[in-house]
Amino acid sequence: MSPPAALDVETNGNGVHKPLTVDGIAAVRAHSAKMPAGVAPSTSSDMFKSPACYTKPKAKRWDHILTLEAKSRKTSTLKGAARYLKNPGLISLGGGLPSPEYFPFEELSIKVPTPPGFSPEATRQSGVNLVAGKHDIREGKSLYDLEISLNYGQSTGSPQLLRFITEHTELIHNPPYSDWQCCLTAGSTYAWDTALRMLCEKGDYLLMEEYTFSSAQETALPLGVKVAPIKMDEQGLLPEALDDVLSNWDATARGARKPFVLYTIPTGQNPTGATQSLERRKAIYKVSQKHGIYIIEDEPYYFLQMQPYTGADSEPVPPPANHGEFLKSLIPSYLSIDVDGRVLRMESFSKVLTPGSRTGWIIGSEQIIERFTRYGEVSAQHPSGFSQLILFKLLDEHWGHPGYFDWLINMRMQYTNRRDIMVHACEKHLPQEIASWIAPAAGMFHWIEVDWKKHPELTSGKTRDSIEEALFQAAVNNGVLISRGSWFKAAGRTEDKMFFRATFAAASEENITEAIKRFGDALRVEFRL
Amino acid sequence: MSPPAALDVETNGNGVHKPLTVDGIAAVRAHSAKMPAGVAPSTSSDMFKSPACYTKPKAKRWDHILTLEAKSRKTSTLKGAARYLKNPGLISLGGGLPSPEYFPFEELSIKVPTPPGFSPEATRQSGVNLVAGKHDIREGKSLYDLEISLNYGQSTGSPQLLRFITEHTELIHNPPYSDWQCCLTAGSTYAWDTALRMLCEKGDYLLMEEYTFSSAQETALPLGVKVAPIKMDEQGLLPEALDDVLSNWDATARGARKPFVLYTIPTGQNPTGATQSLERRKAIYKVSQKHGIYIIEDEPYYFLQMQPYTGADSEPVPPPANHGEFLKSLIPSYLSIDVDGRVLRMESFSKVLTPGSRTGWIIGSEQIIERFTRYGEVSAQHPSGFSQLILFKLLDEHWGHPGYFDWLINMRMQYTNRRDIMVHACEKHLPQEIASWIAPAAGMFHWIEVDWKKHPELTSGKTRDSIEEALFQAAVNNGVLISRGSWFKAAGRTEDKMFFRATFAAASEENITEAIKRFGDALRVEFRL
Repeated sequence: MSPPAALDVETNGNGVHKPLTVDGIAAVRAHSAKMPAGVAPSTSSDMFKSPACYTKPKAKRWDHILTLEAKSRKTSTLKGAARYLKNPGLISLGGGLPSPEYFPFEELSIKVPTPPGFSPEATRQSGVNLVAGKHDIREGKSLYDLEISLNYGQSTGSPQLLRFITEHTELIHNPPYSDWQCCLTAGSTYAWDTALRMLCEKGDYLLMEEYTFSSAQETALPLGVKVAPIKMDEQGLLPEALDDVLSNWDATARGARKPFVLYTIPTGQNPTGATQSLERRKAIYKVSQKHGIYIIEDEPYYFLQMQPYTGADSEPVPPPANHGEFLKSLIPSYLSIDVDGRVLRMESFSKVLTPGSRTGWIIGSEQIIERFTRYGEVSAQHPSGFSQLILFKLLDEHWGHPGYFDWLINMRMQYTNRRDIMVHACEKHLPQEIASWIAPAAGMFHWIEVDWKKHPELTSGKTRDSIEEALFQAAVNNGVLISRGSWFKAAGRTEDKMFFRATFAAASEENITEAIKRFGDALRVEFRL
Repeated sequence: MSPPAALDVETNGNGVHKPLTVDGIAAVRAHSAKMPAGVAPSTSSDMFKSPACYTKPKAKRWDHILTLEAKSRKTSTLKGAARYLKNPGLISLGGGLPSPEYFPFEELSIKVPTPPGFSPEATRQSGVNLVAGKHDIREGKSLYDLEISLNYGQSTGSPQLLRFITEHTELIHNPPYSDWQCCLTAGSTYAWDTALRMLCEKGDYLLMEEYTFSSAQETALPLGVKVAPIKMDEQGLLPEALDDVLSNWDATARGARKPFVLYTIPTGQNPTGATQSLERRKAIYKVSQKHGIYIIEDEPYYFLQMQPYTGADSEPVPPPANHGEFLKSLIPSYLSIDVDGRVLRMESFSKVLTPGSRTGWIIGSEQIIERFTRYGEVSAQHPSGFSQLILFKLLDEHWGHPGYFDWLINMRMQYTNRRDIMVHACEKHLPQEIASWIAPAAGMFHWIEVDWKKHPELTSGKTRDSIEEALFQAAVNNGVLISRGSWFKAAGRTEDKMFFRATFAAASEENITEAIKRFGDALRVEFRL
């Protein structure tokens, strides 16, 4: 890894590089190597990082935590032969790449909003059609086209989209070590499955929040991986509880070595909606350093951080005044405090653009990302070329970083509004003798605790589990589907409290209120209130 | 599994159902259940199969070959809750699905060819723009739209595209058992990685052709899976050799149980270009029955079956006269003779439409496909929604099955032409004292044997491997990249012959001829001819 040649480095006058800003991107691009134009070019974030990155120390090595499978993966023989393609005049009869003349797609067009007219109505009026031709690169019309996006690519993703992702990562997180890399993924679910195979041997324990994304756990268990649940409070994961589990790990009693992988959703946690403060993150990072823990930060909801909740009768908080205020409002990520390179951050477009692109990305140290790409090239390979091209046209060519920030601020306000409607509905319609909650600060989920010990049939032998089941069925019978908290409990956790998870992402505003009313009615009937 | 209700079953007069034809599809569709219109509907090929399928016996069970991981995978808790969504009037606060009003894509349009004008030039003149709006389903304009394709889906894929795939499978392969299912995949590379995890435990042996797709082997080895190579001839895999390896398997000497998974590329095999005849397939199937073998048939090149090679001075064979002739010209697949349900067929759009869609599909028995979907929902989930929508618009709404057959015939003739150019160039430019080949009948690859034992420096101590390396480098230095045969040899195979693999898929016609000339020149210099 080395900085791009001939970089005109901006410093603060003391030789220290200034962090990258949106305004500085044009200069970095101007000094970077030319965008590769061929089929399946090898690429990395190093092509697109600002010079400031190269003044930082390198990440630690993580050889000792890689699985035997991860250590055994080799560079694909055929992809390795691609290095000869750089020879001028060489004709390749090597790789089995189909010829683009046989792709039956000559032009793609997609209608998208222009900031600030983000609503579907505004898009129909002021939106633009972004058009990609088959040979736009050859014809000098664009840096990316159908000819290239629809052929095979490298498992890092296309350089065209990777450039935007790398810049975005530096703008938002600016990792404090030098050799960080991004890699596109076929979505975070795929990335997590791969990370598990890279890091956890059969029989190992994985550290997870005591309530966690059920699919994340369900990915792990059939691999023979066990879960050590860590207690949470209203800010999520408790550093003391993490330290406690690790300090008192009894390998003999557990039949497994001390865990070294933590999976956490720091922002708008699924299912609890909890968001870790910066202090909380720093404390958890410190415990991780103490015990040699590698952190997977799964962050689909990072940009669904909302305005503060002000209550039903107060004025809503106005949106961030500008991009600077917006960036300041975001709680720093683990990646942004990761001096060791002990964090793998999983990012997703699913919650902020569309789940259908099946495109996400990860950020981590060069060593970990290199291993990840070795898995990718013999599995999902890379996100769909249609997806990559459409995201490039929208994010890079049309919106740029400022337009994407405008969109993210718009999403922040939309979710703030939805959250407010749900919390207001809860205040109005739920029986507060037995139901309690904290308004979430991020994400899609509202976590409602129900005091099951006040259930009238408890004395006649009903159990906690049978009450949870009865409340869930009563809600369904009254016309509302709400998730049972126990669906999300980490394996091995003993259930004592009772929760329900309600999402404010999907239903319409009227339906959110109506659904909460139905849930409240069902609770009242069941608890005879 | 049960047939769709109220099917008006066409029989041949003796109560036996006629095989599905293109003309019969409208009737099957008319009697099938309505296309599901909601987000992430559960779906299966049973919704779309013709009544003829249900008269056949069921597949065998394969419980005994599934890995512990495969047996342990459970239905996703959250996807399981989706069953309540069928309740009329129910409002869901359950799943974390984003609202489509926040997908910044209002309309997608793609310019594609109209049969028979398939060339890029013809498309620019007679092609049409297929347009998908955000709410086409609600507005009654289409069965599929951006609202649905861009949200999450089931890991079987969308019912819209699955219908076309299921019909196509029945038209081409008509599997001889009843409970076959299709499942969309994020490409065959992903499907193969998943199949390995489903079927092979660490330490198991996998049966592969002695020369095989290097990536397929590289996927397996880091899982701790070993390879038992099976000898081939000009028709590929030898059934006697397969029987021999299995009949004489010494579990103690090998340190592993007898293999039960065969990976084969029956048509246009990579790298050898060999195509198994129907008789060969039947013989291999019979050996597989004898030894309890489960067959993975990897078939990206199935529709790159070409017209017979007639030599440089003969007239080319005209294209198939009609769709019936075309279908008759295709060698039957393993799937089409699979009375036991012991075949998992992996299909891909990569070689016939575009690699960039990252969309393929698999066909197998209900038991195996159900297990596969359990992997998919915690990994790649499903192909990109952009890809699925574009493929549906092209294949189902625009071309239909007849138009797709026209396209496939067009591809057949294009590849026939490319193959002919390459073989003619070899006849003209390669030194036939040391180079020999058989014109391939399918696929992208020409397999050239070089008689290294005639190398002049053999007596002065040069080895087979050093000669292969020298020939490869001489070719690169003379401006042509051609793949070394040893890159493809199955692990454990001892190299005695020497081959080079040349693809006629990618280079232009002029470049194919020029490249072969350069290779011939390099061979002449090295062999001092």
